[in-house]
Amino acid sequence: MTATPDIWLRFETPQGARAGYVAGESIVPIAGDMFGDWAADGDPVPLATARLLPPVIPPTFYACGINYAGHCRTAADEFGLDHDKTWPRTPEIGYRAQSAIIGPDEPIVLPADVPPNVQVEAELAVVIGKRCKHATLANALDHVFGYTIANDVSARGWQFADRTFWRSKNADTFKPLGPWIRRDVDLDALVTRVLVNGDLRESFPTNAMIFSIADYIVAMTRYITLVPGDVIIMGTDGHAPQIHAGDRVTIEIEGIGTLSNPVQAEAA
Amino acid sequence: MTATPDIWLRFETPQGARAGYVAGESIVPIAGDMFGDWAADGDPVPLATARLLPPVIPPTFYACGINYAGHCRTAADEFGLDHDKTWPRTPEIGYRAQSAIIGPDEPIVLPADVPPNVQVEAELAVVIGKRCKHATLANALDHVFGYTIANDVSARGWQFADRTFWRSKNADTFKPLGPWIRRDVDLDALVTRVLVNGDLRESFPTNAMIFSIADYIVAMTRYITLVPGDVIIMGTDGHAPQIHAGDRVTIEIEGIGTLSNPVQAEAA
Repeated sequence: MTATPDIWLRFETPQGARAGYVAGESIVPIAGDMFGDWAADGDPVPLATARLLPPVIPPTFYACGINYAGHCRTAADEFGLDHDKTWPRTPEIGYRAQSAIIGPDEPIVLPADVPPNVQVEAELAVVIGKRCKHATLANALDHVFGYTIANDVSARGWQFADRTFWRSKNADTFKPLGPWIRRDVDLDALVTRVLVNGDLRESFPTNAMIFSIADYIVAMTRYITLVPGDVIIMGTDGHAPQIHAGDRVTIEIEGIGTLSNPVQAEAA
Repeated sequence: MTATPDIWLRFETPQGARAGYVAGESIVPIAGDMFGDWAADGDPVPLATARLLPPVIPPTFYACGINYAGHCRTAADEFGLDHDKTWPRTPEIGYRAQSAIIGPDEPIVLPADVPPNVQVEAELAVVIGKRCKHATLANALDHVFGYTIANDVSARGWQFADRTFWRSKNADTFKPLGPWIRRDVDLDALVTRVLVNGDLRESFPTNAMIFSIADYIVAMTRYITLVPGDVIIMGTDGHAPQIHAGDRVTIEIEGIGTLSNPVQAEAA
C-alpha cells in the first residue's frame, strides 16, 4: 500500500454501492469523493469475494473515433471504404450513454433482434480527476485521475443502418467498464489483449494511438469543460473479434487489470 | 396548491443546489428524491427571487432527430437536400451531453471561433419518472414525470463539418434547460414560441410531432432502459432563429413556462 492508493473501485454492499481502494488483498471502503476529499471508513472487505461495480459512472461519457492505424485499415476494409477515408484528420470526440454501462462479470445481453456480427472493441478508458477547460499539451494529463478498461461492444449491422449509434453501441449492457481505476500507470508500457473463451484474438500496444490522450483533452477542452468522473474511451486497434451468446469475452490491459464479461441472448 | 405538486424545480442555496416544488408564490424545499420518496423540508423560499438551476441533470440526455414537418423542410432547404431525404422513417434517438447544460438566465457563451449561424432550437423536454424497458404505446406516458423546455442551441457551421455533434450542439452552455418541470400538462394544448430580444420569431403547436413521445419511448425502450431523471428533447419546428452575442433568447411553451437566456461572446 502506497501513501496515495493506486487502485480505486466501486463495489456492492447490502447498503448499496460503495467506493474504496485496494490495499493488499482487501478493499478499504471510503467516505467522501474519490476525486476529492475522502477518508477510509469502515472495515476492509476481501477483494477476492467482493462484487465489483463499474468503477465510475461518468457524468459525460466520451468516445474517440478511429484512433489506431490497424483499426483504421480494418474498418475501411469492412465497410468497403478507401483507407484514407477512415483516417482521422483531427481528434473529434463522440459520446456513449450512461444507460449502457455494466460492471465486471455482468452479462452482455444481445437484443433478440440484433443483426449478426456483434464485435468487441477493447479500449483504454481515461478517467478525469480535475475540472478542466482550455488544457494545454503540457498540462492535459495533470487532469487525469487514472485509467480503466472499456469494452465498446458494437453491433455492426446497426452501425451504418442507424443515423446515430443508439442501438449499435448503446443498447443496454453494451458498455462494460472496469474492473478498477489504476492511477500509477506507465502508458507506454501498456499492452491490450482481447480473449474470447480464453483464446487470444487480438493484441496491441495500448498507447500507439493516432491522437494521444493529451491531444484529445486539448481539442475537447477548447469547447467543453471536463469534470471529475468523466470518462474518455480511446478507441481500439486491429480486428474487433465477434462475440456470440455463450461466449466469455475478456479484455486485459497489462498494467491495469482484466475486464471479463459473459455474453447472453436476451430472454424471449 | 394541489395534493400532488404540479411544478418542480431546483434552485441555488448557500448550501448548494436543492430541489423543491412551487406552492403559490413560494418554493417548498424537499428532502429526498423528487422522482421517489420526498418530504417538505425547511422554510419556503420566495419564487420571484430564487436563482433557478436546470430542473434536472439527466443521467442520459436523449435527443430526437428531425421530428416536425416544418423543420424537416427548412433543414432540407438549408443543407440543399431533397425534402424526402430529411423525412425520418423511424423514431431514432441521439444524444446530448450533460456537460453542455445550463439553467434559466445563465448566459449562452459563443466560442471565440464559432462559425456564423448559431441557431436556437426550441424543444419540449420530456422528463422520465419511472424505470422503463419494453414500454408499449398504451403505457409509455405512464413513465413520464413531467415536461420542461430545452434550447438545443446549434452551430450550423460545425454541424456538417464534424463527424459528430460534439461542437455544434454540445459546446459548453449550448443546452439551456428549464425553468421547471410541469407535471399537469395537456400536450395537445401546448404552443411553443421563440422570441429573440422580445420579437416573436417562430411559433408552433408543440405536440404536432412526426413521431409522438410514446412512439419514441416505445422504440427506445426496446433496446434501452430509461431511468428517473432521463430527459428526451423532442425536436423543433419551423425556422430556427439565429442568435448573436448581445441577444436574449426566450422560449415560451404555453402551458409549461418560459426559458430565457442571454447570449455572450466568449471572453478572449
